[in-house]
Amino acid sequence: MFITLEGIEGSGKTTQMRTIARWLTTAGRDFLTTREPGGTPIGTQIRSVLLNPENRDLAPMAELLLYVADRVQHLETAVRPALAAGKVVVCDRYFDATLVYQGYARGLDRDTIHELHRLACGGLTPDLTLLLDLEPGAGLARAWRRIHADTAHAQESRFEKEQLDFHQRVRAGYLDLAGLQPQRFVIIDAALDETAVGVQIEAALAAHVTGRQ
Amino acid sequence: MFITLEGIEGSGKTTQMRTIARWLTTAGRDFLTTREPGGTPIGTQIRSVLLNPENRDLAPMAELLLYVADRVQHLETAVRPALAAGKVVVCDRYFDATLVYQGYARGLDRDTIHELHRLACGGLTPDLTLLLDLEPGAGLARAWRRIHADTAHAQESRFEKEQLDFHQRVRAGYLDLAGLQPQRFVIIDAALDETAVGVQIEAALAAHVTGRQ
Ligand SMILES: Nc1ncnc2c1ncn2[C@@H]1O[C@H](COP(=O)(O)OP(=O)(O)OP(=O)(O)O)[C@@H](O)[C@H]1O
Ligand SMILES: Nc1ncnc2c1ncn2[C@@H]1O[C@H](COP(=O)(O)OP(=O)(O)OP(=O)(O)O)[C@@H](O)[C@H]1O
Ligand SMILES: [Mg+2]
Ligand SMILES: [Mg+2]
Repeated sequence: MFITLEGIEGSGKTTQMRTIARWLTTAGRDFLTTREPGGTPIGTQIRSVLLNPENRDLAPMAELLLYVADRVQHLETAVRPALAAGKVVVCDRYFDATLVYQGYARGLDRDTIHELHRLACGGLTPDLTLLLDLEPGAGLARAWRRIHADTAHAQESRFEKEQLDFHQRVRAGYLDLAGLQPQRFVIIDAALDETAVGVQIEAALAAHVTGRQ
Repeated sequence: MFITLEGIEGSGKTTQMRTIARWLTTAGRDFLTTREPGGTPIGTQIRSVLLNPENRDLAPMAELLLYVADRVQHLETAVRPALAAGKVVVCDRYFDATLVYQGYARGLDRDTIHELHRLACGGLTPDLTLLLDLEPGAGLARAWRRIHADTAHAQESRFEKEQLDFHQRVRAGYLDLAGLQPQRFVIIDAALDETAVGVQIEAALAAHVTGRQ
């Protein structure tokens, strides 16, 4: 079973990974938690090209290909082996993030992105996607608080400096995808406090994971 | 006009770039000579991921995507602007190299590689491809001589350590492509000495470039 966590920056994905790990442990499931981009040594090298602030002239299509290269490496060396071993794989961001950031928000053709996903990743689709939905102002405020507590992280991310309307497009993109595939997506109200978000996630896991291979 | 130079390692591409530059200068043509991978600052960063000897577990599809990402960046920032400005662009390796190394020699599906090229590069095809054809044993012998004269270069390349039969598949792949597109390819006998190879190249340029925009 392949589960992904999606949502704008600061929506609480990394935070809620802990809730998911706890729930799966209690449920006695063998699992792997991982993240994109950068979940492999080669992915980390690719990530450093993507996040290098000097790479301002990175062509949108080249950026897309680097994300997909990282994904393929991550799928081949981490995700697929774990799935083949019967583990539940939980991944912090996946293909929907590419569709939303590069497609909905930056304007690359979404059919091209889908086509590339099919060619490079065999179109591997999550069984369950937890969408942490949050108003971008709130997400950025959380992210900024984190930045001020952690300067190294701040320097890493180009995205956090981007405009609010960009993040509005990201949020709207995610909600559009969730509307198109309601069986796969569960929308979580991420504006609540950490515990209340965790309760919704546990309910989604109980409904979708319990009893499934 | 877009010209590419192809051929196995040590076949003389970099050497003959000088002949081409001299010919175009004499012909009064404005031109750009460039190379793949690594023709841009971002390409150089991608190249270092591709050539890092620690990246032994780089998935073949991820490797392919990195080559195409480098190509897109190179096309967008160097090749297309130069073509748009009316220059002749001469590139040391291009799409045929991907098809031959990743497809014919490493066994990735060639239709997938074509499809990716169409999606990512708009399928941009050279007007003329000079194929420096050489028996791999001779090419590798030349390349080894160069390595011993230049240790830094030797450490850079994973390919030069690969088996002779791999290079046989590369050579056969190139010849197969040339057979499929005889209008675009000119096969140059690269076993002759540098001057004799240059004479063939000048003849090909005279036939294909003179009088063309
Ligand atoms: N429900 C919540 N209410 C308030 N603050 C929260 C909540 N969940 C997480 N936070 C805080 O918000 C910040 C961002 O959370 P987190 O890093 O989990 O988000 P994220 O979705 O992983 O962001 P990114 O996409 O940047 O990785 C952190 O400082 C975290 O402690
Ligand atoms: N016609 C020739 N006869 C003999 N030696 C040659 C000839 N052309 C080039 N060389 C020598 O062979 C070596 C390889 O040539 P060159 O670097 O031009 O090949 P290349 O096709 O660019 O290889 P690579 O694919 O590794 O970049 C060099 O040392 C060069 O001086
Ligand atoms: Mg996070
Ligand atoms: Mg060369």
